[in-house]
Amino acid sequence: MTLEAIRYRSRGHLEILDQLLLPLETRYERIRNVEDGWHAIKDMKVRGAPAIAITGALSLVAEMVDKEFDSLDSLLRFLQEKLDYLLTARPTAVNLKRAADDIVALAKNLSEGKNAVDDSKDRIISLIEDMLTADLDTNKRLGQHGADHVLKHSSGQPQTVITHCNAGSLATSGYGTALGVVRALAEREKLQHVYCTETRPYNQGSRLTAYELVYDKLPGSLIADSMASYAMKEKKITAVFVGADRVVANGDTANKIGTYQLAIAAKHHGIPFYVCAPTTTVDLNLASGEQIVIEERPHKELTCLKDVQLAAPGIGCWNPAFDVTPASLITGGIVTENGVFPPDKLQDSMTADHNTKHNLKRKLANDV
Amino acid sequence: MTLEAIRYRSRGHLEILDQLLLPLETRYERIRNVEDGWHAIKDMKVRGAPAIAITGALSLVAEMVDKEFDSLDSLLRFLQEKLDYLLTARPTAVNLKRAADDIVALAKNLSEGKNAVDDSKDRIISLIEDMLTADLDTNKRLGQHGADHVLKHSSGQPQTVITHCNAGSLATSGYGTALGVVRALAEREKLQHVYCTETRPYNQGSRLTAYELVYDKLPGSLIADSMASYAMKEKKITAVFVGADRVVANGDTANKIGTYQLAIAAKHHGIPFYVCAPTTTVDLNLASGEQIVIEERPHKELTCLKDVQLAAPGIGCWNPAFDVTPASLITGGIVTENGVFPPDKLQDSMTADHNTKHNLKRKLANDV
Repeated sequence: MTLEAIRYRSRGHLEILDQLLLPLETRYERIRNVEDGWHAIKDMKVRGAPAIAITGALSLVAEMVDKEFDSLDSLLRFLQEKLDYLLTARPTAVNLKRAADDIVALAKNLSEGKNAVDDSKDRIISLIEDMLTADLDTNKRLGQHGADHVLKHSSGQPQTVITHCNAGSLATSGYGTALGVVRALAEREKLQHVYCTETRPYNQGSRLTAYELVYDKLPGSLIADSMASYAMKEKKITAVFVGADRVVANGDTANKIGTYQLAIAAKHHGIPFYVCAPTTTVDLNLASGEQIVIEERPHKELTCLKDVQLAAPGIGCWNPAFDVTPASLITGGIVTENGVFPPDKLQDSMTADHNTKHNLKRKLANDV
Repeated sequence: MTLEAIRYRSRGHLEILDQLLLPLETRYERIRNVEDGWHAIKDMKVRGAPAIAITGALSLVAEMVDKEFDSLDSLLRFLQEKLDYLLTARPTAVNLKRAADDIVALAKNLSEGKNAVDDSKDRIISLIEDMLTADLDTNKRLGQHGADHVLKHSSGQPQTVITHCNAGSLATSGYGTALGVVRALAEREKLQHVYCTETRPYNQGSRLTAYELVYDKLPGSLIADSMASYAMKEKKITAVFVGADRVVANGDTANKIGTYQLAIAAKHHGIPFYVCAPTTTVDLNLASGEQIVIEERPHKELTCLKDVQLAAPGIGCWNPAFDVTPASLITGGIVTENGVFPPDKLQDSMTADHNTKHNLKRKLANDV
């Protein structure tokens, strides 16, 4: 079966794959309460914005499933307090904030009505459990759209692709985004080979993506980041699929450092370049990529590896964590759960999508 | 003073910098004889084709300087035997073979004439000592030509450059080729900044080039290979200078893996891309880069770093040591000790140069 960062087999029974032990050891850890969830997120045993959100919310379920509440008010206070605490684990994880807002909104609605406490608790738990299946469903739809598109534009020929960093099962509730497309191709027996870049300096490619490929027995090879262009030429790469940390209104995309260089190389070789991003990653508040602030990380990531000193002591470093790929280089398109869009059509598709969701939400609120 | 891979202060007194200890320790090791020289080359305490040739030849001087020979024949036999042995240390090092041929040719010429043994020994030693100064001189001329060219084509503005791998003092008898241009720019106070790529998977950039920059107090920063394109955009890079393992007749260039990707990125940004190569690196026997066989290296270089396992066990790897950059991407030119040439003019310049050298050699032979 496919690799899971999060295992949730029965109500309240949550386990997460301890990613700190990868690639050498595959060990799931039981999360029994919010305290456990907070530590798993803080210590980066679980990573990737969608996976963080689901883990946090499900840790709440694990704690509340056997707990009795004497009133709707005490249930609401419990949820608010625990979610506020969870958000301190990694404050920048916007998906967890979004999940927390949805949970509290439902609880408030319920507390204003004449609902039984136990029924309300069940509905909160169901909302959270739905987040897990919804994220997985989003990724699977995204993967199918990506596979459809690339196959349609290459007369159905088997694909030899490059991916960068880890946009896989380990960063989501399962299946992955860029690796979701790779998995969809494999399911159709249309995956010839996947090359994953090691992704310096933090090696998410060699540690995590290579692990996913081995685990799922996908035909893959590890390359250094500097080998991607030569692979495009020598290995006849047919497409590049990467994830995204943020896609803005005009389609410019912030993603792991090295994405921009891959996109330039793909353009040079006439290879379609795809960004794979669920619509939750799209930020219409920013007009263009120039407005994205890029985090610079500690020099130590470049100069050392665990206890091994790699670089000459005293050398300066420049270590940006992300770069911005302009929409013009995203030649394949932006792959979302709703389809594949040219970067300049993304905003329109999102606005239509946003209206639909908004109406649905109003309908749900009225049902309460 | 500038960094030296090889120290030769007085006749027969040879020391080499043990590059296995870099970047953490700077220790020179005395080479007292051919046996010491063989081990230093074999164990890769000294590396880079020019540096290997000079170290091997000077180790011969170290051994013969105090040795008495009873005839020209015994001197010739000694030289042939020791050089054959030295060539077994790293059989592919073509520069050492070329040096050995020159030494034996002179010794044969001398043994056919009526020369005194001691005079002949002195002339052999002088020939070898001249190799050290000639290589240094070649690099210095190359560096000046490169600096002249890039400054002329940018109205003399200070340069912010990228270099890849190590084409520096540590790979030559001193000054370096690509880093020779960087040093020449610094001497003219025209070096704004130099970015060196770490050069995965063997990290020659972080281990050796960064060391040279720190040692010579050149304004530099280390970046991951994947950051080069983003640096071109964000740091306003003005030129890229790289070395070469082999330049063929049409100007196509084999160099450390990643060079091709850098050249594509430079072209995308309209930044001149220079290959720095002494004429001894040019191989007119091959017509184009397609004829160059590229060595593939062990997977372990990608999956492990010393004792640290980086990648998921079981993952396949593709690990080419070099790539070929087509002449069309070498937009700045090929920088040699004789000037900077567009790739398609290199062959003509070399043929003229070859004729001059050949005539000079004939003249020298007649002098004996």
